[in-house]
Amino acid sequence: MVIAQSGGPSMVINQSLVGAVLAARKSSRIGRILGARHGIAGILAGDYIDLRKPTAAKLEAIAATPGSALGSVRKKPTPEDCRKIFEAFKRRKVGYFFYIGGNDSADAARIVAEEAEKDGYPLVCYHIPKTIDNDLRTCDHTPGFGSAARFVASALKGDDLDNRALGGVKIDIIMGRDAGFLTAASALARVRKDDGPHLIYLPERPFSLDGFVSDVQAAMKKFGRCVVAVSEGIREADGTPIAARFANGERDSHGNLQLSGTGALGDALAAHLKANAGISRVRADTFGYLQRSFPGVASKTDQKEARAAGAAAVKAALAGKLAKGTIAIVRAKGKAYKVTFEAQPIANAAKYTRSVPDAFISANGHDVTKAFLDYARPIVGPLPPCEVF
Amino acid sequence: MVIAQSGGPSMVINQSLVGAVLAARKSSRIGRILGARHGIAGILAGDYIDLRKPTAAKLEAIAATPGSALGSVRKKPTPEDCRKIFEAFKRRKVGYFFYIGGNDSADAARIVAEEAEKDGYPLVCYHIPKTIDNDLRTCDHTPGFGSAARFVASALKGDDLDNRALGGVKIDIIMGRDAGFLTAASALARVRKDDGPHLIYLPERPFSLDGFVSDVQAAMKKFGRCVVAVSEGIREADGTPIAARFANGERDSHGNLQLSGTGALGDALAAHLKANAGISRVRADTFGYLQRSFPGVASKTDQKEARAAGAAAVKAALAGKLAKGTIAIVRAKGKAYKVTFEAQPIANAAKYTRSVPDAFISANGHDVTKAFLDYARPIVGPLPPCEVF
Repeated sequence: MVIAQSGGPSMVINQSLVGAVLAARKSSRIGRILGARHGIAGILAGDYIDLRKPTAAKLEAIAATPGSALGSVRKKPTPEDCRKIFEAFKRRKVGYFFYIGGNDSADAARIVAEEAEKDGYPLVCYHIPKTIDNDLRTCDHTPGFGSAARFVASALKGDDLDNRALGGVKIDIIMGRDAGFLTAASALARVRKDDGPHLIYLPERPFSLDGFVSDVQAAMKKFGRCVVAVSEGIREADGTPIAARFANGERDSHGNLQLSGTGALGDALAAHLKANAGISRVRADTFGYLQRSFPGVASKTDQKEARAAGAAAVKAALAGKLAKGTIAIVRAKGKAYKVTFEAQPIANAAKYTRSVPDAFISANGHDVTKAFLDYARPIVGPLPPCEVF
Repeated sequence: MVIAQSGGPSMVINQSLVGAVLAARKSSRIGRILGARHGIAGILAGDYIDLRKPTAAKLEAIAATPGSALGSVRKKPTPEDCRKIFEAFKRRKVGYFFYIGGNDSADAARIVAEEAEKDGYPLVCYHIPKTIDNDLRTCDHTPGFGSAARFVASALKGDDLDNRALGGVKIDIIMGRDAGFLTAASALARVRKDDGPHLIYLPERPFSLDGFVSDVQAAMKKFGRCVVAVSEGIREADGTPIAARFANGERDSHGNLQLSGTGALGDALAAHLKANAGISRVRADTFGYLQRSFPGVASKTDQKEARAAGAAAVKAALAGKLAKGTIAIVRAKGKAYKVTFEAQPIANAAKYTRSVPDAFISANGHDVTKAFLDYARPIVGPLPPCEVF
């Protein structure tokens, strides 16, 4: 078997890798376990790690480490790439291929699987879900989201305390190109009635600079200060991303505009408030890559589920139910939090994403509902306690 | 007694507050313990919290919470402010005044103390050290620094793993207007030979954009990727801050340029590299206020010492050694890490700051020495372990 990681790293993508490797080690039907470095690129270059070698202790240490331990890539395979992949797989007698990543990675795995079918190359191909954006249509929530959300909610708790001390407006820009789940998770920071974030803007609702100014002025009147959580993906009514006005226009091979790794959106919103809202102290932070990489803040539930998702993919592949599969995460109905892992056709996870459902967004369009908090809390887990006078 | 907090919050400034309050509660010579909200501003407005009321459990919870629980302010008192302060103090029979903060706050406390002396108002006035910048001349290291440094080093560990996965250049902008201690602490993230940060730029050495480009190109050649830690305060050979080219020019009442709460410096450096270094993937994050406010990452040593510094100020004030004091933190010579807390004249901590000493900066000007790592490690404490293949 070959396993690889793709797309943005997360705090728990290595849990999925280790979950799959440990499950594979238990099966007599799998010979070599090869980890391709940097996803599809490593397969094309023949760059592999022998994943039977590391000790259990080493694997556990890798599992607990943020980042993609095999290296990652953002690459959509061409049919020609696929021919080369199958030649390489044939030489190495590869029958199973596991690809851990988000929807673009699922789509890459789908392309590989469909091309293999066309070519008559016998390949069982599974996508293992991962994305801090929480936007896979197959998953109640995706591995990686709970931990990134725990970082965001913790950060907002600290930031709200900082804003209590010095006042004014604080804007925090949070990852999530098309889906606002991670920005919504900022609401978990609240314990007291006057805790921030006081305003939450998601890409799922149109954003207007005029509405922003009046929302902030109203919050300043009510709380004497204002903490704002803003998704990097906020957009105008016609769908134009607000960040597109300021970003450098760089796009990846899947056509996605670069939104992270730049403070331009936060700076622009802060400047707009200073100029138009009559507020002197306005600060903006862009949380950036820390949201997916900061060590020591992962959600325990997220770690456990990411591990289980990796193992489930190997078990499903060996069970032979589907030749082209993805692992769906399904939440059981009822009060007690419980999830199951189910094999579904890979196309279900590929390419298209989901947004924050209407039931999770408040009527005023700049907050979340109790239904969202109930949904997110067990995934994110407890946050550091904070006390005020 | 009156106690207050001033300047930027930190993860442990509430430890100092609680240390002072608990010490004061033990003395029969102190009557009311008043916490002024928002520093000098709260004294002028008569806005106090009765700090005899909170239970020990509540105080412990406050101590463990980031931010300034009393609220903060950036205000240099005028002689007229001081007259009003003494009138208010007289009405409330205030004989002891404690001000927790950095060098600007020490200077504010010094002004109050000197004006009281001029007016013949009997006031024992102590400054309690706090600054994540680590730039007080009276302290081997300042309370707040160890925890902020632990955030920075943890962040760099995660960020280095992220950069390993996807490659290119990652620039991280770190707080520290004049002193590069916090940026230097990024070096604690390294365990393996090829771990980032690969370049570290401090305000203590002149920064040139041309030198930056060639340094990054050399690192890319050596490591195939590059993680850069940059102080927000880097400056040209003539002393002009690089950020001044891009910042919005806002200044506080002590005349300090606003450097934090904007991503402009990181974005400008990233754009410069893209245009001049022939590197396509360049990202920049500005860590911003998370460095001083993120809950759950405080250094245990820092927490303990911040508490002890608060208690030491009250004890020194009651002992009557100095009427205008600050608490110096002195590290014992020898291998075992140990500090003592000593009363010194308040002027020693006020206004002027210190820089990273030459012995801590590598000869090439873009790294730190082993002496710095030995200095910082016990203050910051252990970091989350991270493993790679």
